[in-house]
Amino acid sequence: MKFIAEIDIMPHKELLDPQGKAVVNNIGHLDLNRVTDVRIGRHVTMTLEAASEPEARQTVETACQKLLANLIVETFSYELNKG
Amino acid sequence: MKFIAEIDIMPHKELLDPQGKAVVNNIGHLDLNRVTDVRIGRHVTMTLEAASEPEARQTVETACQKLLANLIVETFSYELNKG
Repeated sequence: MKFIAEIDIMPHKELLDPQGKAVVNNIGHLDLNRVTDVRIGRHVTMTLEAASEPEARQTVETACQKLLANLIVETFSYELNKG
Repeated sequence: MKFIAEIDIMPHKELLDPQGKAVVNNIGHLDLNRVTDVRIGRHVTMTLEAASEPEARQTVETACQKLLANLIVETFSYELNKG
């Protein structure tokens, strides 16, 4: 079966996110002063073949833990849909 | 009212995504050969104050169009939730 995983990889809440802070500090130039916080991470769309949903989840989690996310400074979450 | 927008900014489907291609080509080292496609973009969590939901949507769309996304090579989508 084909599955599509929508993965979000974000900096830990406790950590400063300099890219997001830069956006908040400069968004005033667009007259958007009411934006109070911005955090920027990565979004990954992964297409995969797997025999079952648990197998697909295992593949996505292994890929995130070993390759896509740096778990020291980032967390990941995902949604899995049938493709 | 406080709103939280979860924004995904992804490369256009028609465009090559070299970062994603590199991940697919190298994911075999993790014995995850059944991953057939990976596309990598950005995920932005934006917290904002707005009087109404339409006003919040306007703010998010302006920020995406003018600052966060490069609409020549990227598309954006978002979900808006009350914070």
